Amino acid sequence: MTTFPRRPSLKAMPQETLFAIPGTPVFVGQRRSEQARLDLFLYDAEQVFEITAATLADCRDARSRQGVLWINVSAVHAIDLLEALGQEFALHPLTVEDIANTAHRPKWEEFPAYGFLAMKMVHRSEGGRGVDVEHVSVILGDGFVLSFLEDDGDVFETVRQRIRGGAGRVRRLGADYLAFCLMDAVVDHYFLAIESIGEWVEHFEDRLLSNAMQVEIGGLYRFKRELLEVRRAVWPLREVLSAINRSESPLLLRHNQAFWRDLYDHAVQVMDMVDNARESLASMHDTYLSSLSNRMNEVMKMLTIISTIFIPLTFIAGIYGMNFKFMPELEWRYGYYFVLAVMVCIAAMLVAYFRRQRWL
Amino acid sequence: MTTFPRRPSLKAMPQETLFAIPGTPVFVGQRRSEQARLDLFLYDAEQVFEITAATLADCRDARSRQGVLWINVSAVHAIDLLEALGQEFALHPLTVEDIANTAHRPKWEEFPAYGFLAMKMVHRSEGGRGVDVEHVSVILGDGFVLSFLEDDGDVFETVRQRIRGGAGRVRRLGADYLAFCLMDAVVDHYFLAIESIGEWVEHFEDRLLSNAMQVEIGGLYRFKRELLEVRRAVWPLREVLSAINRSESPLLLRHNQAFWRDLYDHAVQVMDMVDNARESLASMHDTYLSSLSNRMNEVMKMLTIISTIFIPLTFIAGIYGMNFKFMPELEWRYGYYFVLAVMVCIAAMLVAYFRRQRWL
Amino acid sequence: MTTFPRRPSLKAMPQETLFAIPGTPVFVGQRRSEQARLDLFLYDAEQVFEITAATLADCRDARSRQGVLWINVSAVHAIDLLEALGQEFALHPLTVEDIANTAHRPKWEEFPAYGFLAMKMVHRSEGGRGVDVEHVSVILGDGFVLSFLEDDGDVFETVRQRIRGGAGRVRRLGADYLAFCLMDAVVDHYFLAIESIGEWVEHFEDRLLSNAMQVEIGGLYRFKRELLEVRRAVWPLREVLSAINRSESPLLLRHNQAFWRDLYDHAVQVMDMVDNARESLASMHDTYLSSLSNRMNEVMKMLTIISTIFIPLTFIAGIYGMNFKFMPELEWRYGYYFVLAVMVCIAAMLVAYFRRQRWL
Amino acid sequence: MTTFPRRPSLKAMPQETLFAIPGTPVFVGQRRSEQARLDLFLYDAEQVFEITAATLADCRDARSRQGVLWINVSAVHAIDLLEALGQEFALHPLTVEDIANTAHRPKWEEFPAYGFLAMKMVHRSEGGRGVDVEHVSVILGDGFVLSFLEDDGDVFETVRQRIRGGAGRVRRLGADYLAFCLMDAVVDHYFLAIESIGEWVEHFEDRLLSNAMQVEIGGLYRFKRELLEVRRAVWPLREVLSAINRSESPLLLRHNQAFWRDLYDHAVQVMDMVDNARESLASMHDTYLSSLSNRMNEVMKMLTIISTIFIPLTFIAGIYGMNFKFMPELEWRYGYYFVLAVMVCIAAMLVAYFRRQRWL
Amino acid sequence: MTTFPRRPSLKAMPQETLFAIPGTPVFVGQRRSEQARLDLFLYDAEQVFEITAATLADCRDARSRQGVLWINVSAVHAIDLLEALGQEFALHPLTVEDIANTAHRPKWEEFPAYGFLAMKMVHRSEGGRGVDVEHVSVILGDGFVLSFLEDDGDVFETVRQRIRGGAGRVRRLGADYLAFCLMDAVVDHYFLAIESIGEWVEHFEDRLLSNAMQVEIGGLYRFKRELLEVRRAVWPLREVLSAINRSESPLLLRHNQAFWRDLYDHAVQVMDMVDNARESLASMHDTYLSSLSNRMNEVMKMLTIISTIFIPLTFIAGIYGMNFKFMPELEWRYGYYFVLAVMVCIAAMLVAYFRRQRWL
Repeated sequence: MTTFPRRPSLKAMPQETLFAIPGTPVFVGQRRSEQARLDLFLYDAEQVFEITAATLADCRDARSRQGVLWINVSAVHAIDLLEALGQEFALHPLTVEDIANTAHRPKWEEFPAYGFLAMKMVHRSEGGRGVDVEHVSVILGDGFVLSFLEDDGDVFETVRQRIRGGAGRVRRLGADYLAFCLMDAVVDHYFLAIESIGEWVEHFEDRLLSNAMQVEIGGLYRFKRELLEVRRAVWPLREVLSAINRSESPLLLRHNQAFWRDLYDHAVQVMDMVDNARESLASMHDTYLSSLSNRMNEVMKMLTIISTIFIPLTFIAGIYGMNFKFMPELEWRYGYYFVLAVMVCIAAMLVAYFRRQRWL
Repeated sequence: MTTFPRRPSLKAMPQETLFAIPGTPVFVGQRRSEQARLDLFLYDAEQVFEITAATLADCRDARSRQGVLWINVSAVHAIDLLEALGQEFALHPLTVEDIANTAHRPKWEEFPAYGFLAMKMVHRSEGGRGVDVEHVSVILGDGFVLSFLEDDGDVFETVRQRIRGGAGRVRRLGADYLAFCLMDAVVDHYFLAIESIGEWVEHFEDRLLSNAMQVEIGGLYRFKRELLEVRRAVWPLREVLSAINRSESPLLLRHNQAFWRDLYDHAVQVMDMVDNARESLASMHDTYLSSLSNRMNEVMKMLTIISTIFIPLTFIAGIYGMNFKFMPELEWRYGYYFVLAVMVCIAAMLVAYFRRQRWL
Repeated sequence: MTTFPRRPSLKAMPQETLFAIPGTPVFVGQRRSEQARLDLFLYDAEQVFEITAATLADCRDARSRQGVLWINVSAVHAIDLLEALGQEFALHPLTVEDIANTAHRPKWEEFPAYGFLAMKMVHRSEGGRGVDVEHVSVILGDGFVLSFLEDDGDVFETVRQRIRGGAGRVRRLGADYLAFCLMDAVVDHYFLAIESIGEWVEHFEDRLLSNAMQVEIGGLYRFKRELLEVRRAVWPLREVLSAINRSESPLLLRHNQAFWRDLYDHAVQVMDMVDNARESLASMHDTYLSSLSNRMNEVMKMLTIISTIFIPLTFIAGIYGMNFKFMPELEWRYGYYFVLAVMVCIAAMLVAYFRRQRWL
Repeated sequence: MTTFPRRPSLKAMPQETLFAIPGTPVFVGQRRSEQARLDLFLYDAEQVFEITAATLADCRDARSRQGVLWINVSAVHAIDLLEALGQEFALHPLTVEDIANTAHRPKWEEFPAYGFLAMKMVHRSEGGRGVDVEHVSVILGDGFVLSFLEDDGDVFETVRQRIRGGAGRVRRLGADYLAFCLMDAVVDHYFLAIESIGEWVEHFEDRLLSNAMQVEIGGLYRFKRELLEVRRAVWPLREVLSAINRSESPLLLRHNQAFWRDLYDHAVQVMDMVDNARESLASMHDTYLSSLSNRMNEVMKMLTIISTIFIPLTFIAGIYGMNFKFMPELEWRYGYYFVLAVMVCIAAMLVAYFRRQRWL
Repeated sequence: MTTFPRRPSLKAMPQETLFAIPGTPVFVGQRRSEQARLDLFLYDAEQVFEITAATLADCRDARSRQGVLWINVSAVHAIDLLEALGQEFALHPLTVEDIANTAHRPKWEEFPAYGFLAMKMVHRSEGGRGVDVEHVSVILGDGFVLSFLEDDGDVFETVRQRIRGGAGRVRRLGADYLAFCLMDAVVDHYFLAIESIGEWVEHFEDRLLSNAMQVEIGGLYRFKRELLEVRRAVWPLREVLSAINRSESPLLLRHNQAFWRDLYDHAVQVMDMVDNARESLASMHDTYLSSLSNRMNEVMKMLTIISTIFIPLTFIAGIYGMNFKFMPELEWRYGYYFVLAVMVCIAAMLVAYFRRQRWL
């Protein structure tokens, strides 16, 4: 799995893709696994068939049978495989193009025979620094679900276990509930990613409030960018889920509607978290700048007090350091003590002045 | 009762919850009371039955009788109890999950047999510093109301007293009026919390306008965050109440509509207050920064005036402190007085210059 | 008449009110006049009856007669009177509560038998400093108008004179035209309040542009807050008037619609004025900060030029002020003049450098 | 023609107007021409009648004839004339009031017998500095158009010439096309005003990028205000034209709709230009502030380098300038050279330090 | 091809154009090619006719035949040619005006017989610095497409090749698919332009994070302006495509709808990219300012530490440099060493103080 590029959206579309004929699938991104793989599940309330690393023939065969069919395609760079699947399941060429284009925005599009859903996975990246964004596509058809990932797909492992073990409702409810479970697994990962960022924010905030000077402002900048990436991945999801909730497609069964509504609530909650983190960050930035100004003020006051007291005194000392022949004060018996007294007076007056100005 | 965690939304969902099967209730948060408790009221215009620390059997029994049934559940961490109640009152598993998930957003959701309302209580925290946020759920069914709190629930004490004493309309009007009363009690607490913050703002503002230098900027930051927490708790309520007002559910009686509209007005008023406080705070922050700049300007002017006057004079004194053999001025009879005069002239000219520049 | 409290919304609801039974009128605010008073008008195109300081019996009596009935209630703190009037004119308890609650937001609410309108009066306060905000309620019923003020009500004096004198359309058109006249009088007062603020802004702006240093930043802050108070009073009015314009209530006659539309235009104009003043103020604040930075720059440049020129020269003078036995330069015939020449050269070079840097 | 007052909206409504009976026309503003004048056109595809300085009798006479009648009223301060025309053409009293009130917002209002359009002309003011805003009203009736200006009206000269010469479509198409032509002439003037401001912006920008220090920040402020005035005049026009486009009034003929749509596009383009200029300005302000900070940084670095190098050296010179009896170094043969060498070393080390810090 | 003027919108409409009769086409802009040229394609699924540099007669002739007709007009400054084409294809005069007005906003307008689409091409300009914006118009009629460019039009070269070679669907699907292909080519160029800007941003960011001092703030300003130009070109496209998607014009065939939806997705993606780049830039600007402040703080601390340590010491040296006759310390045997020791103590105390303040 590779790291999400720094400003992916700006470089997302290589030139050769741009001028391709519309509807030609072109893989955009970096290969995250060597070998494309099909994993096939066929199940109903009573039984489950599972074929790991299935062939296209297995898919065709499974399609003709009873039950809910789920084919998970790992690694979308295999354009040929996508096109073959597209023909088998009668997908529109633009849909196949969108599956392969890993820079595509999240969306929900209804075709007469199926619904197409594109979304983004957000992982914590290995080093604990930065986030990985992965393109996930789900096709919900009549009795079948196709899911497409950029990598090996442990995202859906919990769903697989529930199907195998018969836990929860997934075996009893239809294909749309399966699609819901897949999206739910993706949304659950958002919480993890945000929590990871949140810990960092909290750490940063503690450092900021204890000693603003030791905070490295570049870190704040990098963190803002990460949050922006998560936001970009999550933000369109709200609209997507809202569209699904309003949809009147017969593929989405009435009695499963509460689940989609619940997922919508979760997506909104994720957005809230991201926005809160953003607001915290903006507020921290303001506080940082204020502390900086404040600190500068302290430093300047220090300098000014010292300078303002000693510069005049040094001047007086300079006067009596002059080598003029005729300087009567120099001859006075107590001239030295008198000058010292004058200096102490001036210093005392200046200190009193600073006290009155509340600088001291 | 524990303090509201600092950035709850970011850490709200522990990992074990995340990958649970949808519809599985998992308690999220910190236990605020040791013992879960059911308090049961059954009343109509003529009579009231009250059972403190009721059992599930009491509930089942009371359900079969005439009148409005109100069961208040203190401490939602008792998952088993929630599930038993959920089965008794035919609640959807997702509803039970939302009741237990104290990190859930405020919402209003209509199911065929009942309406589910989630909202947030905002308390002043004990130390007078910070706010506590508590998850409150209310189920409005046909002839019954279930309310769920995280703690012992003195929030609803005024409602209980009105039911017992027969004061007001609560005994005459139905279950939806009771639900209204419970929400009304919650909204009334918002006013208290905001007033408490308001006093702090006023105090801060007085300090700021009298002497900006003595204000601790970290306080402004902490206060912004508190206000953000209140806002997060209150903001979705507006939408929730608007949904209730537009609802055509038969559970909400036509002739009680004016009360819900009134509650909506109150929620809008709370939002106005929060937004005003936020604007005040932002404006204070600007003023603080301006004062800081202003102060810095004063300090710098002081330094510059002193330095600009004395540095040239000290230089002249330095000239005549040199030990060259042949320095004719040193031999002059009135050399010393002449140099002093030159120094006074230079100082006077500089002071005049600063006067013209309005620095003095 | 008392001054509008500084942050009224934050402290608006005293605790005893908060937990009152909904629909219980509680007076919120400060008494602005000692004695509550009813002023009664009964008129049609031909004749006018007027009773100053009327009794409830007068009202009841007048209601049974032909013509438009207008009762103006001064001083809403007389809860008993409000309740008696409420029963007489069949007002909903929540309406009576809203009339007494002087912290209530402006709104328009239609009940089957009447329309309820709450709005805010904005006065220039006596000292010419700050604004007073007063709660005004108007009930528009079938053939009658009730108006409620916090004080003696010279706001409506122009309307009274028009009724008495038969000037304008007020005697010919119905109760809704009277309600329009009352609102129109209130909106006209907004223009006065904003003009008063506008003069202050203009004065402030002149001072700012002539010499930013002499501006007291606290004034800008206080003024922002005043504007915010006016805005809070006026802003909801737009929505209120828009609701009245869209209303299909039979109380609002078709052929008077142009007047309400006109009032809506005025409210929008007031909002425009307030927003312009706010933008002017924000822009002034920016300009103020820029001038401050600019000024600081000037001061710093001054300091730097003086220091940079004289510090090296003073150092040279210091060198030859040392008392070493063997310092050959000191013995030179023209050592002194040579050193002076070197100093002049250094100073000239530095001045040239500052010229090239455009600091001078 | 007088200059647009600085903050007209705040002072727009003198007190005597405010409390007038609604529907009483009161002239608001400054008289821009001494003599009110009516200019009358009556034309159809074949012929044109034109009466300059027409009387009311001419108008009445012309109304009874065939063709499109256009009466242009210069100088709206002639209240009597306005009222007479209002009665002649059956205008609503509120319309006459809005024509005379030169502070009124742009709007489109449909009455059963005519449509009323208020808008603002924006001129470059004579001195090339500031903008003049003029109130323009147009009444579109069945077969007639009335236009009202504050001054002599060369704005419409191009339209007059087209009518006289028969150029374009104006003689063939009806009264609504004439109204369109009048608005089009007004909108075309906006482009001129904005271009004039644009030149100023460009000039300012060049100065800013070449040397930010020489820019006078007050100019930026004045310019922001001018742009705000234009924006205020133009902004509501969009809404107005959108209302005309959606209008189903029989006065607006179907086949002229493309023209109105075109005008709407132009208004949007004007708004785009204004908003671009505003964004440019905001961005310039940021750049100005950044340059200021940057410059300050340069100045401070200069000061710090000079001070940091010479202050310690001067201290050393001061040491050996002391007059103690027993200071062994002073007796050393090469003490002087040694101290000079130490000073050079210290200076070199400091310069090396500043190099490493990239200050030099 | 000329460079896009710096603030084109402000100067876009020369005065002679402004007061032209509406519907008179006037070329606005700079001629980008000497010779206007018509390129004609006539094709169906079986065959293709292509005439380069066609005459009007060719167009008329081709119109009467079967198949999809595409005429591409290079260089829109040939007003006569535009008007002749306009008459041939029955275009509304305002449409012809909009084609010639290269400053026109992107829009989609439906006329009974055709749809008119205006949009903007964005090129990377030759020097790699700045962007060129070109006006592109497309007329979609029944069986024909007219496209108008400002230059020679290699933008559409890929489409031409696809028609000639029969690749893709373009030969099989109708005129609306051709119009889609033309727009698609334009939108694909946006990605190139943004990628080019993106590279610049990334370069800038690297420089900023490594050493903020070396960044030239003028570059940030220039870049913001470029992005604003792209945004202005792209932003209205979203609305345009949304209008096309909602359109029920019979010219847009049902089964091609998925392509238009796809194009809308791309336009949204372009906007996302532009907005991300803007946010990155804003965030960079903040970071830049923070670094500046931070740096200033460092510089000031340096100055303050050095000054605060040495100014008092220099003062002490100055004291004993005075030439008073009677200064007992000067006579002390170890006076010199004692003073040196005092100086070291003072310096040590100050260093300790700075350590405690965390300045060192």
